[in-house]
Parts: sequence; structure tokens; C-alpha cells
Amino acid sequence: MSYYQRHIFFCLNQRDSGENACAQHGAQEAFNHCKSRIKAAGLSGVGQVRVNKAGCLDRCAGGPVAVIYPEETWYTFVDNSDIDEIVDKHLIGGEVVERLVLPPNVGR
Amino acid sequence: MSYYQRHIFFCLNQRDSGENACAQHGAQEAFNHCKSRIKAAGLSGVGQVRVNKAGCLDRCAGGPVAVIYPEETWYTFVDNSDIDEIVDKHLIGGEVVERLVLPPNVGR
Repeated sequence: MSYYQRHIFFCLNQRDSGENACAQHGAQEAFNHCKSRIKAAGLSGVGQVRVNKAGCLDRCAGGPVAVIYPEETWYTFVDNSDIDEIVDKHLIGGEVVERLVLPPNVGR
Repeated sequence: MSYYQRHIFFCLNQRDSGENACAQHGAQEAFNHCKSRIKAAGLSGVGQVRVNKAGCLDRCAGGPVAVIYPEETWYTFVDNSDIDEIVDKHLIGGEVVERLVLPPNVGR
């Protein structure tokens, strides 16, 4: 049995050099919004959903990015309505949000 | 196809309050050691292994902790020889290191 049903990791990487990184593109706000949505729905914790901070996920060209395990689904997003769709359809409903899936060739 | 064959996340959480957290128990050193072992083996990157920083994974009572996806295998470790075993047996060999698996009831 898995400890979390779904575990989403948001890249919150910042670069001191000023180089492009997810943190400059709303990653923290997206993380906060996701976390509060899951908490408000009473879905956070063991056997349910964990919304996690992560360092660089090394797919910067598609940033901001997040990945959901164990499904191995990678997402890119722009605003809170994208996060709402990931929360409602995927984290709660278990359905992939195809329009936000990061194409497989997007890397660093 | 998965972007990374295996994705390991190390909790590197620090607490300003001085409360117990993985960072006080060698988590950064374990992360560094794992990352350099995987890099030296030529196994880092797309289709292979990603060694990732993470925030609190919320299983603090078993810290320091790390989780490998997509297998959903949770580990606790003490020193570099534990990390070597996780690298050699699991990240490279695909075999779970039973003696280091975090028991299922260990939470925050």
C-alpha cells in the first residue's frame, strides 16, 4: 500500500544568478494554491494527497512544472485555474489533464 | 514512457524554530553523496535517475527520509554506506533494500 495515494512535487527552484527558474514564474503561488485547495477539501495526508515542495526537477524549458507520482504525470501551468483543473480532475478525480501535460521532449 | 526511470526525493527540510528536521540529521550530506554517486556512474538524467531535493515529506518521525518513485519506496538511512546500498541495489539494480525501508506506520 502506498503511503500517499498521490504525491505532487512543485519545482520551487530559485537561481541566485537571476537565470530563469520556476520560482520566477509563479511556482510558489501555484504550490500555495494547490496546497490550500487540497487542505480545504480534507484530502491532505496519509492515504490521500501530499503537496510537496521540490528543488529543480530539471525540465526548466517547460517551467513552471510539477510532477504527480506514482502516475509519473508531468504538468506545466500558467495560473490558478490551471491548478484548479489539476486538483479537481487529477488529484481528486484520478484523470489526466491532457491539455496541461508537459510534452515528453521538454527538458532543461 | 517515464521521463526518469527512477526519481528519488530527499527531504532537506530545515526548521527555523530549531525543531527536529531531516536537515539536522545528515540529509544534505546523504543527498550530496547520492547525487555524486549517480553522476559518477553516468546514470543521471532523462530515462535514467534524478536525485532531487525536496521539502518536508511529512514522515519526520523516521527522518532522515527519502522516497523513490515510481516504486513508492520509502527509506530511512544513517550514513553514506546506507546511501551506497540504496544506490547500488535500488537505483541501479531495481531491488528494494528491505533493511532500510521505512515502516508503514511512521508518520510525522
